Amino acid sequence: MPQLPITDIPITEIPVSALIPAIDIVGTFVFAISGTLTAASKKLDPFGASVIAFVTALGGGTVRDVLLDVRPVWVQEEKLLITVFVSVMVTLFFRKQVEKYRKTMFLFDTIGIALFTILGMEKALRMGVSPIIALVMGVVSAVFGGVVRDILCNDIPLIFRREIYATACLAGGVAYLLMRKATISGDVPILVAVGIIILIRVLAVKLKWAFPNLS
Amino acid sequence: MPQLPITDIPITEIPVSALIPAIDIVGTFVFAISGTLTAASKKLDPFGASVIAFVTALGGGTVRDVLLDVRPVWVQEEKLLITVFVSVMVTLFFRKQVEKYRKTMFLFDTIGIALFTILGMEKALRMGVSPIIALVMGVVSAVFGGVVRDILCNDIPLIFRREIYATACLAGGVAYLLMRKATISGDVPILVAVGIIILIRVLAVKLKWAFPNLS
Amino acid sequence: MPQLPITDIPITEIPVSALIPAIDIVGTFVFAISGTLTAASKKLDPFGASVIAFVTALGGGTVRDVLLDVRPVWVQEEKLLITVFVSVMVTLFFRKQVEKYRKTMFLFDTIGIALFTILGMEKALRMGVSPIIALVMGVVSAVFGGVVRDILCNDIPLIFRREIYATACLAGGVAYLLMRKATISGDVPILVAVGIIILIRVLAVKLKWAFPNLS
Repeated sequence: MPQLPITDIPITEIPVSALIPAIDIVGTFVFAISGTLTAASKKLDPFGASVIAFVTALGGGTVRDVLLDVRPVWVQEEKLLITVFVSVMVTLFFRKQVEKYRKTMFLFDTIGIALFTILGMEKALRMGVSPIIALVMGVVSAVFGGVVRDILCNDIPLIFRREIYATACLAGGVAYLLMRKATISGDVPILVAVGIIILIRVLAVKLKWAFPNLS
Repeated sequence: MPQLPITDIPITEIPVSALIPAIDIVGTFVFAISGTLTAASKKLDPFGASVIAFVTALGGGTVRDVLLDVRPVWVQEEKLLITVFVSVMVTLFFRKQVEKYRKTMFLFDTIGIALFTILGMEKALRMGVSPIIALVMGVVSAVFGGVVRDILCNDIPLIFRREIYATACLAGGVAYLLMRKATISGDVPILVAVGIIILIRVLAVKLKWAFPNLS
Repeated sequence: MPQLPITDIPITEIPVSALIPAIDIVGTFVFAISGTLTAASKKLDPFGASVIAFVTALGGGTVRDVLLDVRPVWVQEEKLLITVFVSVMVTLFFRKQVEKYRKTMFLFDTIGIALFTILGMEKALRMGVSPIIALVMGVVSAVFGGVVRDILCNDIPLIFRREIYATACLAGGVAYLLMRKATISGDVPILVAVGIIILIRVLAVKLKWAFPNLS
């Protein structure tokens, strides 16, 4: 099948799915920055920072793929590993500048989580698991990198005490499953689901939503 | 193959294996209660409690299945995941009542560990590993959920300092292998092995058996 | 195929690869000693010490094999598990004597790490991953046992703050890949790569090389 030169396609006709690889790289890059900054605040050395950046960025997808009994994506395609490496280098050499962009990073981070949730669900569904399990796999893809990061840094995972983050992913994932079941086609389900996740997370942070801790 | 209505079979003729799925659900339910109570005592939120309940109940079998290079059971059959979810809800809404039944829970927990050990061994043997490795897989099935729970809660795993628990599983597992080798058939090996595990654990708790800590 | 009696081969003609299984066992034995001593210093009990010894010795290879989506070697061949068990017993019964040989152990440990790196890379390459990913898998094989040990003992992994260890493995691994690409044949690549790793590590310890911690 001949491929159209991308510039011939009017912007409004590019399907969202065509942008996914680019967004995947950006999400990995931003997650790796956040991992590097965490490691620096723990006074680890550059090697430690690289490992923490790696698990923050790729740990969630790795756990999902191990549970689905397939090789993690980064084992098959080295571009994700290289993205993490570049991200760590940039963050360590330009730390002051990077820390200025925390707000922009929050936005990318939120978009990344939203996309990782839906892409993780899609992968799980394609591999034949039921919708409920796919929902769990989507949330695992999005949030488990942070859980493993916190375990390696010897903290109780943050997410277990600030759960709106994961709840946002769950809500978007449920919306996605319902739209898929209603056979809504094209890019609508992914756009709506990602929008829901971003909206809930941004509102949760702005309005300080949180479930009460158990005691 | 037509299925007999279960009421037509005299109680004494129901093989133990027919009860396994039910006991599996009960074991998962009880393990999830214990995980939820641990999470509550750590002041996690409901999301954190669900994750801890999940790994306590299903983590051991998950590690076993990943090591055997197959998909964990709960990824294939959603009933185990739903059992955990119901267990968390019940425990959070009826916490005071649940805590009253700690003694009954200890009994179910012990039965659950005993059965998880033997079922884990059987699965490993069916997948072609040697008896010694199967023994390790059985113990991993039974005790690793608690290990992962303690890691997530940032404690040194309890079991590393109170090992009669795992030793009981080992003893029952060895007995099971010996009976299997002696080609004792029917339900005898599983009943005896489970009985040994329960007996050792109950005695260990009553009589405060423990190996000395190293120093 | 008839096997030559080993004594008929002049020493200088035995390829290094013929010695690998023996060195693999020795490496596992020494890593397990180091795990047992760590567990003892944390006042764990004998069961806990066995688990820590096991993950220290076999954890790195296990993580590598799970990521490559194959069964870990020790699940297929019980001799590694038995080696760990014997090592734990010997260490617990002869602890004072074992502690006297810390220097000799450091040498074996270093040889073990060097060999685990190169053997881990070879396995990954044979399973079709790219050289960069194979390099990561080699380092994971060598150092992740220690990482999991430190997580179980509730410490921030030592290696994240003393990275020359992993850097030595990386340097040897890169040298190995370059020699392989230059199609240098026979035992030269493995001997040179292992030599580089040992040299860097010994020098790093003697001269107290370390990357600065981030702050």
